Amino acid sequence: MNKLHTIGFFILLCSAFAKAQLVQTSQADSLMLKSIYDYSLTESKSYEWLDYLSNNIGGRLSGSIQAQRAVEYTEKEIAKFASRTELQSVMVPKWTRGTPEFAYIQLNDFSTINVNVCALGGSIPTREAGIKAGVVEVTSLEQLAQIGRKEIEGKIVFYNRPMDPTKIQTFEAYGGCVDQRYSGAEEAGKYGAVGVIVRSMNLRLDDYPHTGSMSYGDLDVENYIPAAAISTNDAEKLHTYLSLDKNLQFFLKQDCTVWGDVESYNVIGEIKGTKYPNEVIIVGGHLDSWDLGDGSHDDGAGVVQSMQVLETLKKLDYQPLRTIRVVLFMNEENGLKGAREYAKQAKAKSENHIFALESDAGGFSPRGFSFDATEDQMKVVHSWKKLFKPYLIHYFEKGGSGADVGPLKDSGTVLAGLRPDSQRYFDFHHAANDTFDAVNKRELELGAATMTSLIYLFDQYGVVDNSMD
Amino acid sequence: MNKLHTIGFFILLCSAFAKAQLVQTSQADSLMLKSIYDYSLTESKSYEWLDYLSNNIGGRLSGSIQAQRAVEYTEKEIAKFASRTELQSVMVPKWTRGTPEFAYIQLNDFSTINVNVCALGGSIPTREAGIKAGVVEVTSLEQLAQIGRKEIEGKIVFYNRPMDPTKIQTFEAYGGCVDQRYSGAEEAGKYGAVGVIVRSMNLRLDDYPHTGSMSYGDLDVENYIPAAAISTNDAEKLHTYLSLDKNLQFFLKQDCTVWGDVESYNVIGEIKGTKYPNEVIIVGGHLDSWDLGDGSHDDGAGVVQSMQVLETLKKLDYQPLRTIRVVLFMNEENGLKGAREYAKQAKAKSENHIFALESDAGGFSPRGFSFDATEDQMKVVHSWKKLFKPYLIHYFEKGGSGADVGPLKDSGTVLAGLRPDSQRYFDFHHAANDTFDAVNKRELELGAATMTSLIYLFDQYGVVDNSMD
Repeated sequence: MNKLHTIGFFILLCSAFAKAQLVQTSQADSLMLKSIYDYSLTESKSYEWLDYLSNNIGGRLSGSIQAQRAVEYTEKEIAKFASRTELQSVMVPKWTRGTPEFAYIQLNDFSTINVNVCALGGSIPTREAGIKAGVVEVTSLEQLAQIGRKEIEGKIVFYNRPMDPTKIQTFEAYGGCVDQRYSGAEEAGKYGAVGVIVRSMNLRLDDYPHTGSMSYGDLDVENYIPAAAISTNDAEKLHTYLSLDKNLQFFLKQDCTVWGDVESYNVIGEIKGTKYPNEVIIVGGHLDSWDLGDGSHDDGAGVVQSMQVLETLKKLDYQPLRTIRVVLFMNEENGLKGAREYAKQAKAKSENHIFALESDAGGFSPRGFSFDATEDQMKVVHSWKKLFKPYLIHYFEKGGSGADVGPLKDSGTVLAGLRPDSQRYFDFHHAANDTFDAVNKRELELGAATMTSLIYLFDQYGVVDNSMD
Repeated sequence: MNKLHTIGFFILLCSAFAKAQLVQTSQADSLMLKSIYDYSLTESKSYEWLDYLSNNIGGRLSGSIQAQRAVEYTEKEIAKFASRTELQSVMVPKWTRGTPEFAYIQLNDFSTINVNVCALGGSIPTREAGIKAGVVEVTSLEQLAQIGRKEIEGKIVFYNRPMDPTKIQTFEAYGGCVDQRYSGAEEAGKYGAVGVIVRSMNLRLDDYPHTGSMSYGDLDVENYIPAAAISTNDAEKLHTYLSLDKNLQFFLKQDCTVWGDVESYNVIGEIKGTKYPNEVIIVGGHLDSWDLGDGSHDDGAGVVQSMQVLETLKKLDYQPLRTIRVVLFMNEENGLKGAREYAKQAKAKSENHIFALESDAGGFSPRGFSFDATEDQMKVVHSWKKLFKPYLIHYFEKGGSGADVGPLKDSGTVLAGLRPDSQRYFDFHHAANDTFDAVNKRELELGAATMTSLIYLFDQYGVVDNSMD
């Protein structure tokens, strides 16, 4: 610990002379980043926490017992290094999957082929005996209008537009497809469909169906129809069989339930700032997850990395100038109620959030950050790039930050999101294989170290005050 | 194909006006890279080839039937897009593992704990009944001299220095440890040890022993001793038990065999240059692999990516200015005989190799390249960086290139190695879990696209002639 103490003291000395964002980064910053990475790769707790969240608690859908256990566990762990913890009450939707879904294709010779499906989050069930109907395959919501009610009524609509493999950033490919999942049932319901099957949001061909949130929008309740995802392999299979027998029948049975809202919590912990305690920096991920896997990448990784930021700074004896807070948001997956409540309370208390960092893109090898910030603020960020070069962190671009920090945008907070390598993310996203073994310890730790480094720099140098522009 | 033809023609037009390396990159280059990435991510063959190499052929140790099948298969495939193929004869060492290794720790109460070991490549067997001896644990070769013959004679030496987790580039951590595996038996043999056990070169704690090449150096044959790797989990276990019972016994049985050299082949295919056919650009990986897994990352990935470079250029109707050649080297793992033979023949034929690119760091998400080049040559490479930015390729640094292109260095060839993300590489390297399922299709394809793009740029702009300096 001697070396760490010395470095911490050196940094304190240097920071005493720092004049906010105008100062040049110093040798002390390089040393601090080295300490952060070294600690993260050798003694940090993130992987152990993720093991517990994933393997001891499991999938943490909003309103579930597991979500409540995760609230209690993380608060207990955060209390070990934070000077203050808080459970922030929030009402969240509760939806349960029920017994495993069952689906098959029935050809005109009455032979059947089982396929892998799962109910989309928020969907109603089928009737107890299941539904069986002909299938209309489309590749977009717009195509429904062209086809018209006559052909759609009484049928199951099959949305089969794949993610675009030529997009280098896979989140872009996801963004170009997810309307089918989110609004597919609403649109098909308008034309009298009896159900929808959506190709899983997955770039890979495999057997896992991927769930995710959906909405009936403004549809009248009597027009609500069951919605399920089908694995990419089985989407290809269904497409092939439809080309051979357009009158085939599709059977779907699911018994999920939409319940009323229940109380849950955002988990908050902080280390008070020594110089500017009223300037708040937050780092967070979402504590809820889908129910099929154990939510290790989405977003167990972001949760433990955010906790790790504070634990690392504490263990390195770093005394932050500003207040650094970890926020574990509840209900990102199907409502964003936790994020909205947090922003509402921050506003009500007139808290000055200068910077908010989110990790919700998986526990993969980190590449950098995307920012929701002004050009002047980006200039400051770019002046820090050289500090990250030894750690192969290169991506510092304007772009989306994250769903949970989004509601703070109105307050003028600089927002950012960790950007790990995205190539494998949708192999696991919202599926049964999003499990602990899919996360690499070093990659998780490198992400946490990269986040800690950025939080440290914002703590040292603050943000460009836009009111001065 | 229309769009591709148009782009190809546009590039030909532009290249006619290009004055080697002095020309600025153009819009045509950006379009060409976009075509390369799009083709690679949608229609390329690399993943299918890797499936065959891994699942149909399997591990391809030099001199094995599998290595021969790989030679025949890849030549057949390369002939589909190359204008010329060649099998270049080379004598390679042959070593076989025999029946599975068996090892256990025996405590002083005669209880035993089985541990996971594998013979190191090139090791002699134990006697048929196995060996049982006390254990001397060390963390370096140097430590043996300090301990001295008296304590080492008749014992098994256990090398247990782990890879350094704080190295961001994992190959650096590997380089800092691998002397234990390569020279451990030679050094311990000098002090009368009866065997060596080496902690696997793996940053992760798991149950897989990792093999790899070793050498007896100048040791007299009668002092050769069996050498095996032990999994990282079991290395930790052995260390713990030694701290409890320093007189514990270790049992090892392995029946590997060192045979005489046998004939094998480098596989070569090329597309002749249209303008400077005597300037040769090569791209390659090694066709041999270790025998425990199927060598998907090491180096099936590099093999199929190198083949893909030529297939992509051919399918895009690109007519190279210079001769572009794929070389699949035999025997990288335990002899480098293929690489030496290739360089020797190139010299004998006075072939002018201007650029040689190797892929032998796994099929992971590509980050860039390291180069063995002059400062002037690096300036040209850096002028291309902006073309790669849309593909998140950012790493263009001086450093090692690769073992197989290394022997060309004497000829003044610019050398480079693909640098994929290295965090997971040693989880699989030389172990039974280096299998097809550990390779992600998109990451493999992005690597091939990145290599194709660099080869295209070297073809267009050539290299700075150092004789002009």
